[in-house]
Amino acid sequence: MTDFLLKRDIENETVDTESAEKINPLADKAIGVFDSGLGGLTVLKEIIKLLPNENTVYFGDSGRTPYGSKSADTVRRFSRQNTRFLLEQGVKMIVIACNTASAQAYNEVRQIAGVPVIEVITPGAQAAVAKTTNRRIGVIGTRGTVQSGVYAQALARSSGRQLHISQQACPLFVGLAEEGWWNNDIVKSVAGVYLEPLIKDNIDTLVLGCTHYPLLAEAIGQVMGPEVELINAGHFVAEQVMQQLRRDKLLNAQKQLGWHQYFTSDSASHFQQLGSSFLEQRIQAAGHIEIENY
Amino acid sequence: MTDFLLKRDIENETVDTESAEKINPLADKAIGVFDSGLGGLTVLKEIIKLLPNENTVYFGDSGRTPYGSKSADTVRRFSRQNTRFLLEQGVKMIVIACNTASAQAYNEVRQIAGVPVIEVITPGAQAAVAKTTNRRIGVIGTRGTVQSGVYAQALARSSGRQLHISQQACPLFVGLAEEGWWNNDIVKSVAGVYLEPLIKDNIDTLVLGCTHYPLLAEAIGQVMGPEVELINAGHFVAEQVMQQLRRDKLLNAQKQLGWHQYFTSDSASHFQQLGSSFLEQRIQAAGHIEIENY
Repeated sequence: MTDFLLKRDIENETVDTESAEKINPLADKAIGVFDSGLGGLTVLKEIIKLLPNENTVYFGDSGRTPYGSKSADTVRRFSRQNTRFLLEQGVKMIVIACNTASAQAYNEVRQIAGVPVIEVITPGAQAAVAKTTNRRIGVIGTRGTVQSGVYAQALARSSGRQLHISQQACPLFVGLAEEGWWNNDIVKSVAGVYLEPLIKDNIDTLVLGCTHYPLLAEAIGQVMGPEVELINAGHFVAEQVMQQLRRDKLLNAQKQLGWHQYFTSDSASHFQQLGSSFLEQRIQAAGHIEIENY
Repeated sequence: MTDFLLKRDIENETVDTESAEKINPLADKAIGVFDSGLGGLTVLKEIIKLLPNENTVYFGDSGRTPYGSKSADTVRRFSRQNTRFLLEQGVKMIVIACNTASAQAYNEVRQIAGVPVIEVITPGAQAAVAKTTNRRIGVIGTRGTVQSGVYAQALARSSGRQLHISQQACPLFVGLAEEGWWNNDIVKSVAGVYLEPLIKDNIDTLVLGCTHYPLLAEAIGQVMGPEVELINAGHFVAEQVMQQLRRDKLLNAQKQLGWHQYFTSDSASHFQQLGSSFLEQRIQAAGHIEIENY
């Protein structure tokens, strides 16, 4: 349905010559996406799926990953550098595909960006509010995301009604995802420890508040039980990217599939190898960036 | 015994006025120690225990931790910056208290240091060779350390005889140690998966090739069984620090206990809090450093 809408929208914009002058000249520029490392590729995957004609530039800060255990000041400094790098690539939009950076650096990034900035907290929160029936929502994420309280705020903003919110930091999930242990007995044991308070709290909706967590969704779902709805923010972020681009007349009108560039602050070959499994498609090439210079 | 030797040595050097001119004027400077984060505090703890009169400056690169999953080039760049920071503090020696940095950046650090440099690989390897009776030695560490093959080389250099060496990367151990899960069923399950090939290989000595791993020593020991000797390199590193300082007439002759300074590239309060548990003594204060500027 959304795919159909998108196609119609693009065709309208390219065929309708009267409104052609309304198309922003930046429309053929790429969407810039950054993350603390590989996790954001689960968001990029959703953007590519929904907007296959868009060009994208992804920067994964694997050289300084993870952000989740680092202080807010550090995350803000890193996020400003990542943003400056993407702006140098001439992007038309910046997607902060990292919950920790979204939680702690959204305002900083907006201040220097000069292009629309999308973060990953609000779309997930809105989806959770739309799904819950008992108004008991769980949020799992890194320690940084949970401590920031940003999901609690976003959920409250998205809901007109009183919510019961249970939060839990799950720092080991990132390591498990990067180890390729996506669903085994150990993952389920770790999930059992982390998620027990949320089960006791009788939540019916669980926000996967870290871009690595969708990779563990099967194990998390088995521990939580079938009656709990898991919210993978990536899908809703992609929808918001589409809406924002459409609003700003920034949708790329090209008919061919978009190109995708990848950059990392760590080894390019390492990024290519692990990243391909996160993205579920082969990353042909990645460039190494000395991000401290930005 | 070593404490006694140390004391006698210091007293000889301070009382014996004839050889006073032999004491290096840098002797009252601090020992500089750096690590990718908190793990090196397990090495610092051993240095302070063995050399209580020495002053120390510790830099933990928690803002960019972990090093274990990063490329050699990145680890070398970070290590050069850490070294330049410590040199600016006027240290008389640099201890690379991180296995990954020792494995991948020892030569780079030596080239720019201009003071003695101690790494953590050789002392652990020498201790393992001295302990083994069946010449079957296991090594566990981060992916970077294991892939570098540096332990296999150091073990071969330390032994006149043929050795059977089994290596295993245990990337989740760092996360478990930092989560404070030092000995529970999950740690033992994870250890069971990682260590199974080493048990099958019938090793009698296991090098804990990452400075975080001594915190999990109890669980690792339970999985390996009582007949396997665990090598905590920190203790042997401290002995090598003492020998090198003595050789260079750099032992601090002061009678009072040394002072200890702590710096980190992440939040100082976070470092103080977690670091105190790693060090097993309270860190009173820590300074934040913008390490990218070095």
